[in-house]
Amino acid sequence: MTDLQNLIDRLARLPGLGPRSGRRVALYLLKNRGDKLKPLVDALQKADEKLTDCAVCGNLDTENPCSICTDVKRDPTVLCVVEGVADLWAVERSGCYRGHYHVLGGTLSALEGVRPEDLRIRSLVTRVQQNNIQEVILALNATVDGQTTAHYIIDQLDHMPVQVTALAQGVPLGGELDYLDDGTLLTAMNSRRKMGS
Amino acid sequence: MTDLQNLIDRLARLPGLGPRSGRRVALYLLKNRGDKLKPLVDALQKADEKLTDCAVCGNLDTENPCSICTDVKRDPTVLCVVEGVADLWAVERSGCYRGHYHVLGGTLSALEGVRPEDLRIRSLVTRVQQNNIQEVILALNATVDGQTTAHYIIDQLDHMPVQVTALAQGVPLGGELDYLDDGTLLTAMNSRRKMGS
Repeated sequence: MTDLQNLIDRLARLPGLGPRSGRRVALYLLKNRGDKLKPLVDALQKADEKLTDCAVCGNLDTENPCSICTDVKRDPTVLCVVEGVADLWAVERSGCYRGHYHVLGGTLSALEGVRPEDLRIRSLVTRVQQNNIQEVILALNATVDGQTTAHYIIDQLDHMPVQVTALAQGVPLGGELDYLDDGTLLTAMNSRRKMGS
Repeated sequence: MTDLQNLIDRLARLPGLGPRSGRRVALYLLKNRGDKLKPLVDALQKADEKLTDCAVCGNLDTENPCSICTDVKRDPTVLCVVEGVADLWAVERSGCYRGHYHVLGGTLSALEGVRPEDLRIRSLVTRVQQNNIQEVILALNATVDGQTTAHYIIDQLDHMPVQVTALAQGVPLGGELDYLDDGTLLTAMNSRRKMGS
């Protein structure tokens, strides 16, 4: 395999890319070597060198413990449990949360053979036990695996003096009922809110 | 800006990617450092080091002149003129062409200020003059800029003993008339073929 074909293959196997976009990105980078290719290589190498998993929460950061865990302005008695770092970023972007996080590193999955010991569930229980946590917010995906994981965590925290909550499920902002799946509509109906006074 | 944000930004600015896919690719690479990140860095560096523009045709290859220009099994009297290396690859994939290439490096564009001297048109004329070229096939995109460039090249080669041809335009394979733009249908109608004997 040539060096060019190897580069294209490596690019094409990135998530969201394919053979066509792999070729496109390869050509783009090779046309703009000083501008784009070298800075990208630098950025990849620097990220590889400097970024590490936070030993406390599992976040990806240049510091360990991460900048969220060491931020004194954040509430250390609330933990938001997420599947991955991308979900942590999504919650941070929403700007509505000022507590700490716990990144599981995935969800339980019988199909893919992911067991509780493969996730950071043990350390979540330990954190709750030792750090006077008042609330654990389960911000897991509304998928079968996400909800299975949520129920497993609820079981694990069952006898502890901590409130466990989960994100509300319902009609998304801007959602049109006609286009919603039946499950979402059912959930939204069952969790309907009282309006007015 | 953090190292992570820098990496995400660099990835997000690649063609076909955006902020969301940039984040996704960054996390994917950082989760699979040995497997994916390091080999990608190696592939980028190797491609940067080894790949160079062919001085004859403008193709991108580890050799100069490139493997197509030096392939003795190919017909050196036919030149296929393409805008970029991606188009050369597209013609190669079709498997229907066994001549040489000439990569222009873009198209004439009044809007973007691309003039004839910015493209490899001068060297095309020289090649045709000096190498006993029998046919020049214009395989340029069916866009305004592509066709402007085609007409400019036709003018430049006008008084030379070489046949200039262009790709046929018409209904693409599997194309449904109802979904075609009017221009394509008009071209296909005007260039209609006689069928039967």
